[in-house]
Formats: sequence, structure tokens, C-alpha cells
Amino acid sequence: MRRLALGKAFTLMEPGPVVLVTTHDGKRRNVMTISWTMVVDFTPVFAITTGAWNHSFAALRRTRECVIAIPTVDMLDRIVGIGTCSGIDTDKFAKFKLTPVPGKFVMAPLIMECLANIECKVRDIVRKHNIVVLEGVAATVDTARKERRTVHAVGDGTFIVDGRRLDRRKMMAAKLRTGL
Amino acid sequence: MRRLALGKAFTLMEPGPVVLVTTHDGKRRNVMTISWTMVVDFTPVFAITTGAWNHSFAALRRTRECVIAIPTVDMLDRIVGIGTCSGIDTDKFAKFKLTPVPGKFVMAPLIMECLANIECKVRDIVRKHNIVVLEGVAATVDTARKERRTVHAVGDGTFIVDGRRLDRRKMMAAKLRTGL
Repeated sequence: MRRLALGKAFTLMEPGPVVLVTTHDGKRRNVMTISWTMVVDFTPVFAITTGAWNHSFAALRRTRECVIAIPTVDMLDRIVGIGTCSGIDTDKFAKFKLTPVPGKFVMAPLIMECLANIECKVRDIVRKHNIVVLEGVAATVDTARKERRTVHAVGDGTFIVDGRRLDRRKMMAAKLRTGL
Repeated sequence: MRRLALGKAFTLMEPGPVVLVTTHDGKRRNVMTISWTMVVDFTPVFAITTGAWNHSFAALRRTRECVIAIPTVDMLDRIVGIGTCSGIDTDKFAKFKLTPVPGKFVMAPLIMECLANIECKVRDIVRKHNIVVLEGVAATVDTARKERRTVHAVGDGTFIVDGRRLDRRKMMAAKLRTGL
């Protein structure tokens, strides 16, 4: 895994991939599937929608830390599996054969099998809307990985895989942040 | 354009397509490109990140209304063009040959050329994080349209087009809301 400049971390989230969010409450690790995510700033700051209906929320609220891990299409059955069972009674890392990797800044584990991992601190919890605002403090990408296509949850049980990439960098030159 | 059950409107937003958001301040229509979006609830409630840096924000704040229009890949140059000029000095509907269609519940226009349109009321503006929470009040989809692939902004000037769709409805049956 190679360190990614924090200023580029938003490019992992902006396309809207379904992600895995890990937590560690001091005793137990856990992981949930989240497709309700948003970039909030380039710094980078992200928002996710979650609440007490997710077992991970208690750890997220108490530790104010998590890792956003970005899986790829070859992991789809694990993504769905993680999203359809609960950390209350399941060690999902064991069940889905995920390898936890210690983070540098947070107790929550990175997931070795994922394309990228973003260590995050909780900046704010907007309880009224179940929105958790996260600040990325470190990001890594597995540059050796062949499969790089992420998946987008539709919400009806189907998932859209990344297709072609179109380049409009020239058209957007004036708007792009330098160094991307 | 065919009316879409409101309970299904989140499936338009959850995959993370770049969208166009229209406003009408009573005098002038405007449209902006937004890729920082999130589903917040099935009801449907959405969040978008925007603020005073977008000319549309003033109208959004004052009228508390907008339309989220979902464009497809054949509109990419228009999507980028809309995102790289300002409503301060440009009638973007004229410049980009967009056909405004009156909404049923909001002054902001629907965009006829788009795959889908969601009329929205502003539920809340979380100023601290530049998050605008929107409630969809009506949704329509152009069911006759052939091109249905949306695009996902990466944020570096490139865009990922929808690829294959994978079906995991059986695996997710217990989690899915009925009727999808």
C-alpha cells in the first residue's frame, strides 16, 4: 500500500463507490457497508449517513474514529455479505476473510484486500440528519492491484460497475486544483 | 417523462452520478453541476455540498427549492461546461441548449434532456459544513430514452461511465425495501 497525498483523497470518494467503514471500540473490530457517502471538502472531509441502526455507530460515536476502505468489483459478494449481517453476533473480518492492517492514526483497522483506505477522525455528528462528518488524516492506495473497478450501489439490489473513463481535463483546467 | 414513485427516487442518487441542480429565483433560472451528493433517507432525502461559491446558492437559500436533474454520458460536455461557467453572467439553459420544463411543486425548472428529474424542497441548510439537505417531492424518469448511462466525476478532470450492472437482489432480499 502506498501513501496517497491527502489532497487527492477526495478523488477516491467523489465517484460514489460503495465503501466499507471499519471501527474498533477498544475491544472489537467491526466493518459495515455504506453507499450513502459524500465529499464535503477537498481537505479532505467526507460525510456518511449512518445511525443507531448500524451496530458500528456506537463505536464510531465513542471513539470518533474510523477507516473508509474502498473495495473493488471482485469483492462484491463480500460487500453485500458485510451489509447483510451484523457485528453484534459476527466477527465480519473473520467471516469474510478480510485482513486487518493497523492504521497510523486510528485504532480502526485498514483492510488489506481493498484498493484504498482512508483513516478518518469524526469531525461532527449532525444527529438531526444522521450525518457523520469525517476528516481524512491519512490515505493509502494499493498501486500493485490489477482490479481497480469500484461498484456503485443502486439501492434495489443491483450494482453498477465502473466502465470507461473519459478525460475532460483540458475543459476543466481552470477549475481543477493544482497537482491532480 | 413518466412519474416515478417517490420511494424509488433514492435509487437515482445512490449510485453517485454527477447531477445538475436547477434553481429559479423568481426572475432568472440557473443550473449548476454538482457531484458532491448523498442519499440521507429513503423518504427520499438527499444532501448536497454547496455554498456561496456557487451563484445558485443564493436562490437555493431564498426560495428553498431546486430540481436535481440526472444527465447521461451523451451530455458530458454540457455537464462540464455548466460546471465551468457562472450564472452571474450566463443563461446556461440558452448556452447549453437545455429545455426547461415547469415543475409541479417548485419554481425551478426540470431539464427535458435529462434522464430523470427530482423536484426538491430545502429541508435544512447545515451552514457549518456547507451541507444542504433536500427533500424530494416529485420525481420523473424519461422511460423512452435510449442512453441511460450516468457519469461519475472523479474530481481530477476525468469521469467514469456506468459499466455493467450486477444483480445481487437474492442475497439482499432481506434488506431490500419492498416494491423495488
